Amino acid sequence: MALIVQKFGGTSVADPEKIKNVAKRVLSKKRDGNQVVVVLSAMSGETNRLTDFALAMQDIPDAREMDVLLSSGEQVTISLFAMAVKAMGGECVSFLGDQVKIETDSSHTRARIENIDSDRILGELNSDKIVVVAGFQGVAENGDITTLGRGGSDTTAVALAAALKADACEIFTDVEGVYTTDPNMCSSAIKIDKISYDEMLELASLGAKVLDIRSVTFAKQYNVPVHVRSTFTETEGTWVVKEDKDMEGKVVSGVTYNKNEARITISGVPDQPGIATKIFTPISDADIIVDMIIQNQDTGNGMTDMTFTVIRSDYQRTLKLLESVVKETGATGGIHGSDSITKISIVGVGMRNHSGIATTMFSILSREGINISMISTSEIKVSCIIEEKYTELAVRALHDAFELGKDSLPEEETL
Amino acid sequence: MALIVQKFGGTSVADPEKIKNVAKRVLSKKRDGNQVVVVLSAMSGETNRLTDFALAMQDIPDAREMDVLLSSGEQVTISLFAMAVKAMGGECVSFLGDQVKIETDSSHTRARIENIDSDRILGELNSDKIVVVAGFQGVAENGDITTLGRGGSDTTAVALAAALKADACEIFTDVEGVYTTDPNMCSSAIKIDKISYDEMLELASLGAKVLDIRSVTFAKQYNVPVHVRSTFTETEGTWVVKEDKDMEGKVVSGVTYNKNEARITISGVPDQPGIATKIFTPISDADIIVDMIIQNQDTGNGMTDMTFTVIRSDYQRTLKLLESVVKETGATGGIHGSDSITKISIVGVGMRNHSGIATTMFSILSREGINISMISTSEIKVSCIIEEKYTELAVRALHDAFELGKDSLPEEETL
Repeated sequence: MALIVQKFGGTSVADPEKIKNVAKRVLSKKRDGNQVVVVLSAMSGETNRLTDFALAMQDIPDAREMDVLLSSGEQVTISLFAMAVKAMGGECVSFLGDQVKIETDSSHTRARIENIDSDRILGELNSDKIVVVAGFQGVAENGDITTLGRGGSDTTAVALAAALKADACEIFTDVEGVYTTDPNMCSSAIKIDKISYDEMLELASLGAKVLDIRSVTFAKQYNVPVHVRSTFTETEGTWVVKEDKDMEGKVVSGVTYNKNEARITISGVPDQPGIATKIFTPISDADIIVDMIIQNQDTGNGMTDMTFTVIRSDYQRTLKLLESVVKETGATGGIHGSDSITKISIVGVGMRNHSGIATTMFSILSREGINISMISTSEIKVSCIIEEKYTELAVRALHDAFELGKDSLPEEETL
Repeated sequence: MALIVQKFGGTSVADPEKIKNVAKRVLSKKRDGNQVVVVLSAMSGETNRLTDFALAMQDIPDAREMDVLLSSGEQVTISLFAMAVKAMGGECVSFLGDQVKIETDSSHTRARIENIDSDRILGELNSDKIVVVAGFQGVAENGDITTLGRGGSDTTAVALAAALKADACEIFTDVEGVYTTDPNMCSSAIKIDKISYDEMLELASLGAKVLDIRSVTFAKQYNVPVHVRSTFTETEGTWVVKEDKDMEGKVVSGVTYNKNEARITISGVPDQPGIATKIFTPISDADIIVDMIIQNQDTGNGMTDMTFTVIRSDYQRTLKLLESVVKETGATGGIHGSDSITKISIVGVGMRNHSGIATTMFSILSREGINISMISTSEIKVSCIIEEKYTELAVRALHDAFELGKDSLPEEETL
């Protein structure tokens, strides 16, 4: 008998019929002899409906009250799910975040889970019930409802799996798993059977939307095997697990891209201590998140350039903020930038043992005539900023060159 | 400085604009120097929307899960309301039933409030905030969400007013107060300025829908002055208060009717001990509520008739149940009944000191040629069952004869 946590997202519970299908699927897992805990999101569309209401009330809705509002969405799906299971002859009980003490800090709309009391859930499981828990929500020390932010239900599921020492956490979604790259961009993309936590972390932070990054962090920390798979088929998906020997064989596991950034350069700033603080303090004070930062070496004239990326929707606001910085620092080259860029990345744990992967990436892009304007690397990934219009070309070229796809064998060998 | 509890129903918070209007009204009360606690229902229509979802899941939705589902409705309105107050420059904090420990028994979908912890609310009031509380919901000892049933938000408001020792509880609704009778049926009906708890209890139990009966019981028990008034005007409504000398002057305060019952007679049953038990046990076992019961005196042949009323939707079911009772008791007269009846009632604390009020009522109805098939009386009310088609005629005749309306002076005096 295994203990499985199954998480279904908003598209999987979008209407009463879909909720019934999920109930049927969960019941079948239960009847196979497993203990099952289900985590649900709000019906797709519901969060937007509620957010529209909130925006009709207040330009920037109060964060505490926003959490009270949005958490009602999962409350609806878990109760309907429990009814559906009971109608099918199963036993089921629903719990809200505060009822199973999913304790978080008090950062409303983006709270972090700190602790979960597993006793109540284990008790219900042992009396042979399916337990359904509201995703996305928790409770702060003072009893206030908190929410975990976009993708928070993934985190709820993995955190529950960790607290319950579950055998696996299954994340059901509308795709079949994690792909070597976006299949919409590259038809030879294939589903990855097994990927390490670290690779998944890089993929998630680089723009792959299939799994929320915080859930991967939790999974890694507590060593929870996560199975990302489709709600609508029985096909095996992608297992996100602890790194093993097999994985090192493949140098690059995936290619990913992110079109949601913008690049800004402030040129001709005096190369002296404290210059970075002067530039970035007003930006962080404005709650603008900076991703990549590159400072060029002083080329001899005592001046340097500072280039960085921000989320695209913060581009205009950042440019405005920098106007006073230019005056203050006496930057002679002014500000320039672009909001039509893409960050393209390759990820793979095998890179640790292989040199020259970054160089290979640069030469592939160069062969296609694609200019690289920024580079950033970690132990298991290389990212390049390129012009947005080259995204598809770059993805396909890298995917082919690193032999990730189903058509990856050299042409002569397939013949 | 007064402490006021204000309750607004579903039609008052039906959409974002209406919620803003309510916020404006509450803020103005606050700025007049009062402490204000607001109790809200779900947006009108929301409960039906959620109930439809539930019925799509399960023929008879699980009661515990139904409470989880339905309680999400108030969660939406209280958070939106708090945002609206904040947008207007006020301070406001929302609380769900369990957050302010509105403790109930565990009778899901019709729970009774047992205790309220007023500390948290008083703390927020003393830090100058408006406190908004979800109506209709509470929490059972095991942490389960409970709901109080239809009209439950009135009860929440009055119970909170009692726990907080509030100076008044204002119930805002879509009518201007309690009327001498239904204005839709009798154009001379007038708003009652002041009515006693006991009269209001009778009116509520006899079919007046303006105030939930349990809230009146609470108000009487804790002596909470309740002000029933319109959301959409500033006009004073009806005060429901402790009986005083003024009230005794008026013999009859109101005329009310209830078309929601059906009458059943089982005739020719042997008049012997235990016969009532034999008839009513199967009915109460089937959770059918019996209202009036009349057993005629044995007229000499050892036989009697038993007549009673049930809620109209239970009429056919009750007839069916009685078939076996007829056989068992050997009732010779069989079963007959009607589901087109009305219970018409007059209510007034002044009746205590006046004799002959019932007789006057009978003679008024008789003068109009209306036959009375059942009669039931209490210290402050007289109810008669009549044919449904005479409802309007009976209401007008009684309203006129007891001089309740605006045109109630005798004709010669108005000339």
